[in-house]
Amino acid sequence: MIHTTQFVVRYAETDMMGVVHHSNYPIWAEQSRTSMMREMGYPYSQVEKDGIMLPVTEIHFSFKNPCYFEDLITIDSSVVHVDNRRLKIAYKIYRSENILCCEGYTKHIFMGVETRKSMRINDDVIDRYRTFYNPNFEKNKQV
Amino acid sequence: MIHTTQFVVRYAETDMMGVVHHSNYPIWAEQSRTSMMREMGYPYSQVEKDGIMLPVTEIHFSFKNPCYFEDLITIDSSVVHVDNRRLKIAYKIYRSENILCCEGYTKHIFMGVETRKSMRINDDVIDRYRTFYNPNFEKNKQV
Amino acid sequence: MIHTTQFVVRYAETDMMGVVHHSNYPIWAEQSRTSMMREMGYPYSQVEKDGIMLPVTEIHFSFKNPCYFEDLITIDSSVVHVDNRRLKIAYKIYRSENILCCEGYTKHIFMGVETRKSMRINDDVIDRYRTFYNPNFEKNKQV
Amino acid sequence: MIHTTQFVVRYAETDMMGVVHHSNYPIWAEQSRTSMMREMGYPYSQVEKDGIMLPVTEIHFSFKNPCYFEDLITIDSSVVHVDNRRLKIAYKIYRSENILCCEGYTKHIFMGVETRKSMRINDDVIDRYRTFYNPNFEKNKQV
Repeated sequence: MIHTTQFVVRYAETDMMGVVHHSNYPIWAEQSRTSMMREMGYPYSQVEKDGIMLPVTEIHFSFKNPCYFEDLITIDSSVVHVDNRRLKIAYKIYRSENILCCEGYTKHIFMGVETRKSMRINDDVIDRYRTFYNPNFEKNKQV
Repeated sequence: MIHTTQFVVRYAETDMMGVVHHSNYPIWAEQSRTSMMREMGYPYSQVEKDGIMLPVTEIHFSFKNPCYFEDLITIDSSVVHVDNRRLKIAYKIYRSENILCCEGYTKHIFMGVETRKSMRINDDVIDRYRTFYNPNFEKNKQV
Repeated sequence: MIHTTQFVVRYAETDMMGVVHHSNYPIWAEQSRTSMMREMGYPYSQVEKDGIMLPVTEIHFSFKNPCYFEDLITIDSSVVHVDNRRLKIAYKIYRSENILCCEGYTKHIFMGVETRKSMRINDDVIDRYRTFYNPNFEKNKQV
Repeated sequence: MIHTTQFVVRYAETDMMGVVHHSNYPIWAEQSRTSMMREMGYPYSQVEKDGIMLPVTEIHFSFKNPCYFEDLITIDSSVVHVDNRRLKIAYKIYRSENILCCEGYTKHIFMGVETRKSMRINDDVIDRYRTFYNPNFEKNKQV
């Protein structure tokens, strides 16, 4: 399954080039990722309450086309790797008329809120992430 | 008429106090204001294309209760003053269960994109803003 | 004493109007405020470690002139009220050549990190804030 | 030559994990990059006035250690590739005591402000970027 989320570009997200500033894409990816986790039935606010954090260890985004104020943004996202310690999620960000604007991924580790150290998560948590597992998502332009 | 808009708090909007950082409320107000302008049939992206800008000349927000990550936010907003040169919009920001978190207003002038000087807008533009005109909106806790 | 802090406008702080987006001014005020607290010898990171938070209860900013990318910003700030429960700080924000761009204030209460309730601070903490106490700061255009 | 810039972490840059939110690192990299351009005598505000933009086409950051509120941040940056059409800059971000927190790079193209199309820049502009050219900067942990 692929997760899809939609929202409208905020004025504050633009810069003096007249387009969305690139620093917003990691925030949009995070919005998509946390929306995916709500859809899999384990919202990130609950994850942290359960003593698990998912810090970002790596981000990569490449920009194909600009996005503009009031564009309707669609983000498709998928889990492309998950094991007991690590998670990788990939994103494709479109504006209206299906124009691909940005592709990227984020890597995460599971970490204890108290220990602030890497930890192993249970297989049933992995199973939830597998709902959105599409290992070939990054290869395909239009999945 | 009162304009209502809803969205979910982003993780990036929180701070180390564990709550939404106060600098996000002006951005949320702007999201509500531009959503209102779309609903009145004159989106702000079109306004700027027509050579008119609506810069913010004053902001005021008072904070009653914190908002948290993944809270569903509801913003009610109304025009509380409009004439050919000036606009004032007021906002009430709630989280779930109708908890009032923030009240505020923003003041604006109409300004030419080219001249960067104060300008007069036509009466038919004022009429659009009057759709959401509620001069007593700020006085009432629950309109 | 008046506290002064300086920095250069970031590209990410601009918007498609070509000027600094108004949501950055509360962040700049906070930078000025925390710099003031470091200068008074009680940095805000230490305040929170001591179990005290200083949440913002009200913000007010009025905008006189725009700021631009790479402008050198100077912020003068002063304590305009302090007692055992409350704090009010005022700000004047200039760009180069002493052009006043923004005036504003923020109100705060002292709150327990654990209790998340209003608390009384000791007189010696008040004395530190008094170092930067200028009750007439807001009245004067150029102090 | 390596460019070095320093600043203090803002409160607004933290998140509810108690650390700097990852979306700030691209903004910090941009601050370092524009500071480098000022030092090479061709500030980015002037570049845009000359009709040239430097949009970001790719960002990559990996996170080694968290940064905290009020940390003094040091960013070393170098040009690792430059030709008439493209630029790649790499960054190493440290907090106090020389702790490496983040490594990354950004890729850019030269684009006409009017045409919004890729353009060739003159050799004398390339020469300026060569001042900070260190092709091995990314390989070395401590250059």
